[in-house]
Amino acid sequence: MSEPFPPAYAALHARFAELGALAEAGAILSWDQAVIMPAAGAASRGEQFAALAAVTHRAATDPAIPALLARAEAEALPPPHAANLRLMRRAHTRQVAVPEALVAARARAQTACETAWRDARRNSDFAAVAPTLAEVVRLTREAAGHLGAATGLSPYDALMDIFQPGLRTSRVAPIFVELESFLPPLIEATLQRQAAGPVPVMPRGPFPIAAQQRLTRRLAQGAGLDFASARLDESTHPFSGGTPEDTRITTRYRADDFSQAVLAVLHECGHALYEKGLPAEFRRQPAGDSAGMAVHESQSLIIEMQASRGDAFLGWLAPVLADELGPDPAFAPDNLGKLWRHVEKGFIRVEADELTYPLHVILRFRLEQALIAGTLAVADLPGAWNDTFHQLFGLTPPDDARGCLQDIHWYDGAFGYFPSYSLGALAAAQLSQAAVAADPAIPQALAQGSFAPLLGWLRGHVHALGAAADLDGVLRAATGRDLDATAFRAHVASRYSNK
Amino acid sequence: MSEPFPPAYAALHARFAELGALAEAGAILSWDQAVIMPAAGAASRGEQFAALAAVTHRAATDPAIPALLARAEAEALPPPHAANLRLMRRAHTRQVAVPEALVAARARAQTACETAWRDARRNSDFAAVAPTLAEVVRLTREAAGHLGAATGLSPYDALMDIFQPGLRTSRVAPIFVELESFLPPLIEATLQRQAAGPVPVMPRGPFPIAAQQRLTRRLAQGAGLDFASARLDESTHPFSGGTPEDTRITTRYRADDFSQAVLAVLHECGHALYEKGLPAEFRRQPAGDSAGMAVHESQSLIIEMQASRGDAFLGWLAPVLADELGPDPAFAPDNLGKLWRHVEKGFIRVEADELTYPLHVILRFRLEQALIAGTLAVADLPGAWNDTFHQLFGLTPPDDARGCLQDIHWYDGAFGYFPSYSLGALAAAQLSQAAVAADPAIPQALAQGSFAPLLGWLRGHVHALGAAADLDGVLRAATGRDLDATAFRAHVASRYSNK
Repeated sequence: MSEPFPPAYAALHARFAELGALAEAGAILSWDQAVIMPAAGAASRGEQFAALAAVTHRAATDPAIPALLARAEAEALPPPHAANLRLMRRAHTRQVAVPEALVAARARAQTACETAWRDARRNSDFAAVAPTLAEVVRLTREAAGHLGAATGLSPYDALMDIFQPGLRTSRVAPIFVELESFLPPLIEATLQRQAAGPVPVMPRGPFPIAAQQRLTRRLAQGAGLDFASARLDESTHPFSGGTPEDTRITTRYRADDFSQAVLAVLHECGHALYEKGLPAEFRRQPAGDSAGMAVHESQSLIIEMQASRGDAFLGWLAPVLADELGPDPAFAPDNLGKLWRHVEKGFIRVEADELTYPLHVILRFRLEQALIAGTLAVADLPGAWNDTFHQLFGLTPPDDARGCLQDIHWYDGAFGYFPSYSLGALAAAQLSQAAVAADPAIPQALAQGSFAPLLGWLRGHVHALGAAADLDGVLRAATGRDLDATAFRAHVASRYSNK
Repeated sequence: MSEPFPPAYAALHARFAELGALAEAGAILSWDQAVIMPAAGAASRGEQFAALAAVTHRAATDPAIPALLARAEAEALPPPHAANLRLMRRAHTRQVAVPEALVAARARAQTACETAWRDARRNSDFAAVAPTLAEVVRLTREAAGHLGAATGLSPYDALMDIFQPGLRTSRVAPIFVELESFLPPLIEATLQRQAAGPVPVMPRGPFPIAAQQRLTRRLAQGAGLDFASARLDESTHPFSGGTPEDTRITTRYRADDFSQAVLAVLHECGHALYEKGLPAEFRRQPAGDSAGMAVHESQSLIIEMQASRGDAFLGWLAPVLADELGPDPAFAPDNLGKLWRHVEKGFIRVEADELTYPLHVILRFRLEQALIAGTLAVADLPGAWNDTFHQLFGLTPPDDARGCLQDIHWYDGAFGYFPSYSLGALAAAQLSQAAVAADPAIPQALAQGSFAPLLGWLRGHVHALGAAADLDGVLRAATGRDLDATAFRAHVASRYSNK
């Protein structure tokens, strides 16, 4: 169905296209803030984000929209556009729930808090950021209350639903219980096996940054990124941003460790390729969005965790590393496998392996529920963090920089996001299993360094759905069943038990 | 006067602060487009600019504003805030004059045309961009008609007034007549003198880009730019952008010519330091804007043309060039003077010297008046350009790339901007004369490479005024009289007649 649309839907289509373009402008400004902006620009960037949030909110809550939605719902629309209209209704319900002044105040508080957090983390000084974090939590709870009232969800579920539509605590909690049951023994067994086996050869380094840049660029192109419409830059934390025609992925380089840059680039390529594969017919429309952050994370992890750390790809990668970085005995495929599938109980989530990672997420899931419920005060966060960490890992973080200050999310107002990481890991395993079963060419191609068959399958079975399906909807369409931990459990058992 | 303001003014203050923040967001996106964005992102960036323009226009034309303006005009405000309120009224009159759909259509057409222009210029293919330019002209004329009706100005004056408030064709035309009377004979005399004298020593080069980058960074710092709140990057056309706390200047580097990068950086520093010196109390308010583009250009030219190409500064610069780029006989101060004050009748405005530059502007002033009046069709532009160029320079451009395709302005919808360049040159001469008369330390400091006394004088006499004065108002406050060509005429006579 091409334009002209029926009149009410056409009017909504134009309005949501504008909202989509404003969101894109914000994505570019966020990229700039992380990659380009001098620190002195933080306050004025905060004003820019606040203004963008305010005008976006005003456009999204225009009093004409409810009548347009009602009229459009009576118009005859083909199913994909009817789905787009349903997503407009969904978005509108949430947008009108939060008053404009609160939207602007949250944007401003988040920018201030994120800025304070950067210093606080560097100095491991939680007290320095606690007041601004308390303000962020206060405003987030207020917004969550409004959202919950409008959607019939609990405040925390209302927040989680923003990042992964349809996700509920009642769906997450039993999955996390299952993870908590089988991961700790597997972690202990793996640690013992590692301790008993030969120590992997550590790469010698240093690896010149320029060589790493060439290597990561080559791998990103190999993964399917076209640099005619993409950039690869550096930032403190790797991320994927920009727009489908103007992809901006970032990584970070350490001269003593090429793995970090390489794996981050492969991970961010997964995110970026998902964005590029979303239905172009619904560009800047709700139906053209991703299916949510858990699905997003599944797309990065299927590239980084499932494919790139598997034996097939490592066999191809070894000589490429030698080619770009110079020969090193550490590059042997089985040694690379030991390095990239090494399990360790560490303090830092973003450095965690796939066995311990879910425990980091479970900790955050518990604490952010308590912060939003108001049963945990911001002042008590460091203690609660350390207690929970000890409970899950048997260790206590030596300082808050390696504890509750490590992640940007809460300081940037993102509560309800963390579960997506682990559900994404489960979804990646389930999708990977289905993809390989459907097309045996996928592992064969990976053994030759090509992601093309895997990417083709993901485009058809995941990317093309856009936001028309939620997490379980995507999994049902692509694998025949809702998300569960079976495939992930089989994957980690296979990868970590028999070596 | 700090907040709280009287209620109506306070409400307007908040609204204009939001508009100011949206303009800043646009400035960062424009910088990104010129410096960072892959070409594939152009269409989606166009949508982003169109959406920003639409929401800005909607906020600026909110039906509540006229009543707020009327109420605020009855509130007791101290003079600086009363001036800010007058500028709010001025801005509002212009903002409500143009319908929102036209604002969005112009933004979209300009982005499309600018994109087409890049290819057209590279291929010297005017026909390829003519249809999109015709659309830009059509929409600009429509907007100029609305603006003229609202302000009582002619359509062209209404456009010019956007870039330099208060400027009128009746003010510009006689000044340009005067320039046209004394410049051509001075140009001819200078060309003869140059031909009769010794040929300047050309720098040997190549000058490694990295060395030029170090040099330009050092000179920018010397001019007063603090890189804790500023960046220096590369773009096809040098410009100054960003915000006062997040200054973004750009230049371009050619290995065979260090002068271009150096002079562009000094020029853009003048623009950037003006923005940094605007009254912080009125940040993101109309009164905190610059006084207009002619005044802006005076601030870049006083640094680049008046100060940096003068003997005092060149004496200091010569050993610095040798230090950064390696020794070269061309760096001798008198030789640098010959190179940087060389006069030549060329086809390209941005490469022009200060004697021929106004003729390039006069050409554009004539043609853009005709385009807006509708007496010149876009299809006839190349012919009209070449005829006028021949009339003014006695030469015919060999192709449209060196003719009507050379400048971005019209293709980006900026009609009425060009006069600002030459009025800025005149204002720079008049301000420079007054500054040196007021503080003899200014030339002494330049001889030691320091712009500090000059910058101090400009901050106090020009920057601090913000937008509270227009071009003549700034000149009266700083020099005691309206803008005229006297100081410029004396400057060029002194610089070009006696050597």
